Amino acid sequence: MSHSDADILVFNAHILTINDKMETFRRGYIIIKNSKIVDIGSMDKFHSKNNNKIDVKEEINAKGDLVFPGFVNAHGHFAMTLFRGIADDLPLMKWLNEYIWPIEAKLQPADCYVGTQLAAIEMIQGGTTTACDMYFNEDQSFNALEEIGFRGVLGHGMIDFGDEKKGKQEISETKKFIELVKKGKLCSVIVSPHAVNTCSDNLLIEAKNLAVEYNLPLQIHLAETKDEVKEVKKKKKSTPTKHLGDIGFLCENLVAGHCVWLNPEDIKLLKENNVKISHNPSSNLKLGSGVFNFKDIAKSEITIALGTDGASSNNNLSMIEELRLASFLHKGINTNPEILPASEAIKMATINGAKALGLENEVGSLEIGKKADLVILNTRMSNVWPPHNPYSLIAYCANDSNVKTTIINGQIVMKDRQFLTVDPRKVLSNAKESLIQIMDRANLKQYNDKKKYLQ
Amino acid sequence: MSHSDADILVFNAHILTINDKMETFRRGYIIIKNSKIVDIGSMDKFHSKNNNKIDVKEEINAKGDLVFPGFVNAHGHFAMTLFRGIADDLPLMKWLNEYIWPIEAKLQPADCYVGTQLAAIEMIQGGTTTACDMYFNEDQSFNALEEIGFRGVLGHGMIDFGDEKKGKQEISETKKFIELVKKGKLCSVIVSPHAVNTCSDNLLIEAKNLAVEYNLPLQIHLAETKDEVKEVKKKKKSTPTKHLGDIGFLCENLVAGHCVWLNPEDIKLLKENNVKISHNPSSNLKLGSGVFNFKDIAKSEITIALGTDGASSNNNLSMIEELRLASFLHKGINTNPEILPASEAIKMATINGAKALGLENEVGSLEIGKKADLVILNTRMSNVWPPHNPYSLIAYCANDSNVKTTIINGQIVMKDRQFLTVDPRKVLSNAKESLIQIMDRANLKQYNDKKKYLQ
Repeated sequence: MSHSDADILVFNAHILTINDKMETFRRGYIIIKNSKIVDIGSMDKFHSKNNNKIDVKEEINAKGDLVFPGFVNAHGHFAMTLFRGIADDLPLMKWLNEYIWPIEAKLQPADCYVGTQLAAIEMIQGGTTTACDMYFNEDQSFNALEEIGFRGVLGHGMIDFGDEKKGKQEISETKKFIELVKKGKLCSVIVSPHAVNTCSDNLLIEAKNLAVEYNLPLQIHLAETKDEVKEVKKKKKSTPTKHLGDIGFLCENLVAGHCVWLNPEDIKLLKENNVKISHNPSSNLKLGSGVFNFKDIAKSEITIALGTDGASSNNNLSMIEELRLASFLHKGINTNPEILPASEAIKMATINGAKALGLENEVGSLEIGKKADLVILNTRMSNVWPPHNPYSLIAYCANDSNVKTTIINGQIVMKDRQFLTVDPRKVLSNAKESLIQIMDRANLKQYNDKKKYLQ
Repeated sequence: MSHSDADILVFNAHILTINDKMETFRRGYIIIKNSKIVDIGSMDKFHSKNNNKIDVKEEINAKGDLVFPGFVNAHGHFAMTLFRGIADDLPLMKWLNEYIWPIEAKLQPADCYVGTQLAAIEMIQGGTTTACDMYFNEDQSFNALEEIGFRGVLGHGMIDFGDEKKGKQEISETKKFIELVKKGKLCSVIVSPHAVNTCSDNLLIEAKNLAVEYNLPLQIHLAETKDEVKEVKKKKKSTPTKHLGDIGFLCENLVAGHCVWLNPEDIKLLKENNVKISHNPSSNLKLGSGVFNFKDIAKSEITIALGTDGASSNNNLSMIEELRLASFLHKGINTNPEILPASEAIKMATINGAKALGLENEVGSLEIGKKADLVILNTRMSNVWPPHNPYSLIAYCANDSNVKTTIINGQIVMKDRQFLTVDPRKVLSNAKESLIQIMDRANLKQYNDKKKYLQ
């Protein structure tokens, strides 16, 4: 192999590969060509291979920096980033009825475009390179992410509330979206029925079949709240998980979001079907949904990924904060400081996310042949100093501002905190304008104060 | 009053005063003179008072920024910032025996100086302006903080393990320290016996008497772990809290750190004695100590402040992360999204901290006559956008990098993320050097890898 036309060389970096052996290179290099990692190793190997003589378009000296795979955010609702802080500290039904639903009803496609842009720039500046979405107007999200160069795994959120006609429309919408995404370079589709209590069995089964037919991942909200479980139990005489098992929905393509209220049989069933879980601790805590049973679920060896959920229930999209919270929460709840150590938490936020989204051969670790999705993190900042413990530095000390440079698919999208593929000031300005207009259209008194703040 | 010689004018700011009425000024100003806030109000008042004609040394246009009182970190061990990440994911006794104690034994006074500097720059860049410390070599911390211009409330940590002679030495050390701190401008003393299970009753009683005699605040670690409670129950036939009540230690000057394992009688006793609590959620969770019973303690109307604890058990000193964690944790544990709303969390992190440390007439809110300790927070960043909900923006969305400018005692210590009173690069370099030397002196194989990373 000739490196004479490599695109990017990152050298002198402290590399955490997050491969099966959790290999690290105290002083290492990565060579990127045509969107992929074509070589990786120690600086000793670099010199012995005469790699210093190769001709590369861009060299990054990452001395003193940590380099690791970009985070994979396994659960989110990008466009809802517009609704960050729109309603906090409220009971769930009041939150939905008086704030979220009235304003969602006034969303227009262009709002979803800018909302997704806002999500993407926040995720990029926090080192996230792949993220899973479920929302509507997904063509807008697709356009926004392809333009920025962000790896979206996008699903048209399907809800029919038992209405057969609506169910058919939803499936056809998803099929249309699958065709659209074929034109993209980076994004892929995840089939996305919303939840057991919002979708008919027909819709769930058709969604599952679609995922199998197109060999796509599949996602659903599962056992997020006690009320959801109660409602499904009443209607179906079964837990949501068992019901999904009964109708043949559970499969290895599936990533189930939240899973706060699983009983031991549910956990067993998910494991038997090789279902993956997206654990979303900030959202579960903030909305008062409850605490994920990490101990038992991890013991069952189910693959657990990590997600931020939407910014209206988090309220940010920081995977660094999410993995810190996950690790600390489960140590505290179980009064056991050995649970979910830093390196495991980072696996949740990278390779496990890739597995959950069916992308484990593409992303989630730094290995030859994988896509070049990576983060360069600045350790020369007081909050992570002295920097001798790379995993706990990322998981327990850092915040998003330690992320210096983000590379997705071999393209540098943020370098030294400067965005190269999008103008963040424009996005902020457009997002604000969108929100004001949505509030104007909704014309509800509960938004008056907020509008005043934005003007 | 003439403003002709005011030091700093902050104008066009969105001000959260955190005063009793939680007053805010959507577009407001603050005038600072001789370390104090001499005027505050809306821009309308500013113009009507002809304040635009005053002569000030420094003007800060804070358009688009939030301004609020600096955070008060109610519990920490500054110099331990050197030990960040030195030992994570370990059971408590292994953590102490094999990592923390062997290395603490090799600390020299100069290490505490640089460790405190490192803590101070991290706290300043995260908007903390006052912090409470308990450690040894406190004269070094005092020097470091006075030089930087940080408001430390410092305590020589007193431990005698029942050794009467050692107990007397500890009291005399504290007395000496009280005399030293009189020479300072910013720092004050907090009398600091370590804990019920590490101090004799004599030492505890003398500490309490000292606090009363000098009218100083008093701190102790209380009911941090289940084991501590078990040990004290065995020895004293009483919970740690009840024992402190029995020997007359409890008083309104006291701030008790942690308080994870209180029973209903303990809570009642603390309330009756008007004791304040420092809640330190990151540390309690990470060390697997347990979960603070916020619901019952808040119901009892005990003043609850917020602390980070030391960076070897947190692992950072971010009050923003701490208040997010506190709010989310207690909502989740109680499956109640209305518990500890953002504004209440911010009160914990500001005015309640001031109350806990006996500084409520000095700091903790922005009011005329109080010290000018304040934060200017940048809201034009993607992680806090759109910025219409100031309290939740700070508590739920922001991270330390949103803090733009920090003012302590009327002195700008960080402006637009640049430190004005200390060279952070020098501190980082000295801190690393200190840690390497400590590891060399300790000469233990468990540090070999870490040393390698630092070299």
